[in-house]
Amino acid sequence: MSQIQYLARIQFDFGAIASLGDEIARLGLKRPLLVTDAGVAEAGILQRVLEAARPSEPVVYDGTTENPTERSLLDCMEIWNDRGCDGVIALGGGSPIDLAKAVALLSSHGGSLVDYNVKRGGSERIGKVSRQIAIPTAAGTGAEVGRACVMSLLDGSKCVAVNLNMVADVVICDPELTLSLPPRLTAATGIDALSHGIETYCSPMENPPAAAIALDAVRRAARWLPVAVQEGNNREARREMMMAALMGGMCLQKSLGGAHAMATPLGELHLHHGTLIGILLPHVLRFNAGHADLAYADLRGAANLPEDAELHAWLTDFVSGLGLPTRLAELGVAAGVLPGIADKASKDHLARTNPRPAGPEDYLTMLRDAL
Amino acid sequence: MSQIQYLARIQFDFGAIASLGDEIARLGLKRPLLVTDAGVAEAGILQRVLEAARPSEPVVYDGTTENPTERSLLDCMEIWNDRGCDGVIALGGGSPIDLAKAVALLSSHGGSLVDYNVKRGGSERIGKVSRQIAIPTAAGTGAEVGRACVMSLLDGSKCVAVNLNMVADVVICDPELTLSLPPRLTAATGIDALSHGIETYCSPMENPPAAAIALDAVRRAARWLPVAVQEGNNREARREMMMAALMGGMCLQKSLGGAHAMATPLGELHLHHGTLIGILLPHVLRFNAGHADLAYADLRGAANLPEDAELHAWLTDFVSGLGLPTRLAELGVAAGVLPGIADKASKDHLARTNPRPAGPEDYLTMLRDAL
Repeated sequence: MSQIQYLARIQFDFGAIASLGDEIARLGLKRPLLVTDAGVAEAGILQRVLEAARPSEPVVYDGTTENPTERSLLDCMEIWNDRGCDGVIALGGGSPIDLAKAVALLSSHGGSLVDYNVKRGGSERIGKVSRQIAIPTAAGTGAEVGRACVMSLLDGSKCVAVNLNMVADVVICDPELTLSLPPRLTAATGIDALSHGIETYCSPMENPPAAAIALDAVRRAARWLPVAVQEGNNREARREMMMAALMGGMCLQKSLGGAHAMATPLGELHLHHGTLIGILLPHVLRFNAGHADLAYADLRGAANLPEDAELHAWLTDFVSGLGLPTRLAELGVAAGVLPGIADKASKDHLARTNPRPAGPEDYLTMLRDAL
Repeated sequence: MSQIQYLARIQFDFGAIASLGDEIARLGLKRPLLVTDAGVAEAGILQRVLEAARPSEPVVYDGTTENPTERSLLDCMEIWNDRGCDGVIALGGGSPIDLAKAVALLSSHGGSLVDYNVKRGGSERIGKVSRQIAIPTAAGTGAEVGRACVMSLLDGSKCVAVNLNMVADVVICDPELTLSLPPRLTAATGIDALSHGIETYCSPMENPPAAAIALDAVRRAARWLPVAVQEGNNREARREMMMAALMGGMCLQKSLGGAHAMATPLGELHLHHGTLIGILLPHVLRFNAGHADLAYADLRGAANLPEDAELHAWLTDFVSGLGLPTRLAELGVAAGVLPGIADKASKDHLARTNPRPAGPEDYLTMLRDAL
């Protein structure tokens, strides 16, 4: 049985941010809380977004950390209550967007985040949450159309809350906001977008609309990511990459595979997600070769490769061509941690939709090859 | 600015209808009103659906006419009120699905349908409507994921209400329900699905996810519609066509073009929509040739045609090969009505997204060529 779902209202274009004031009014928000991080504020993007929000004057929280924490969530809830906020605006990458979802959840449902942990069945209790507007500042995760938030609890453990009711009411994608993203971050986030298209397309889960979107995301990212990295001010490249990231987020309902199954536990070492994916995915593509032939043929076509090209070899060159590392050792990963990572990866729910079944030994082999 | 939106929760597979009872319970419906038509009841499909609804026992209305009327709506509302219904299940083609949307609207908002007429701005006032489950019994309109209902008012005029709040909460697509559809109806509804992919893909409105879905819908319909018509029991063909119809419905947000702009006024003569589209679309494709070259190249690829093939010639052969008429005269359309149809078509909102601008004279030429 395939379950297919599409949600979220998306405004997409250069200058789309100008619609923020209208969207705030349309949602009837009197005092929205804007959740962002210091980097976005320093880049001057926050200021431009606050101007676009007028006449609304959002309350700003810019303390989001790279992996959002329950500490930040509690700070946001204190602001929410003190200032009488009635909706949340997420501005940034995956972290502020996840944090904003948690704020929308607790402000409407009360309790603690752990009460809604998907692993304990708590996510099923999530009903309509507070109003949310998501504004991505990078072309990568596609979290702007996501239904989940991943947070580190005070005890250090990870908590994931997932429910369709947590999808943002409005998404504003303005490629203008990504023009100032430095090459390294453009490359690392862009590889994540590309990987969403590749891994969801190879997933055995049946969802033809998601597959069609995934393949087009691969086509755009394969062509335009190198341009966006080399020419940050190339508007067409920025636009195409933001669309590729959005489409990558839209097809995640088809689920991912081995690269993301390994990136999740490795991420707990505070390594950049996209950078990890760029290192891991070629090894997963080599491992899966021969187990998803039709998908591989379509992916070669989307990446404009000859019929006999090896996807994993192409991707390795593609990643290094972007100036990204191709070995885990370059990120300071030590061989000793790999067995534990391999074990966690094989148990990750994303491992279930890798086209070739893989056990701890398989993941350990891939990780050692990637070291 | 491109606005991109996807909605609806879709269960898709052979046997998916078995989930109806659970979905009714999940929505908390105690006494749903099931809206269908006599044909569906006579085909034995209604009985199978009622069995799948257990333990729920929906109240049945099977008086839906081919072009749903306000008369049927008033009858449904009387039943709704007398029996204390709390949600609506649409079973059938576009007509019961549109009627069910109108029931969901009036039962939650009160007033008359005309109060919500999009042409008078009434549709903007539509908020959350009564719960809806949509179950298509043909692979064609894609109305199961639609946001609009088109009804004939008591005074004979057409009323269209459109709002995202009218999208069904749950869609159950079970190809099993289409196995008994006769060849002629399979062909006429299937051509509508194919045309949604073709016209939305040629529309200048920018919506890459919709475009990706549209192209895949064309690929499926071009390959499998002839099989579904020739071998009604071919399960793969029925499944692929139901997916093509669903995808065709999902990409309608990219808007259509000239064929649908002409089919709307012609439909007021009570002619079958899909049959009209099969006659009209080749002439629109010939008119647009040279004004959407990139789209045409992709469509040729999706239909597996040589690079120098003419789309309009291919579609004419495709339509006649399905045993469908290729001339309006075969439907009893008289030359005298064409100028009026051409005038209405040129003013239809769908004419705005035809890739080549067309005026009344252009439409009249196409209509005369199609006569």
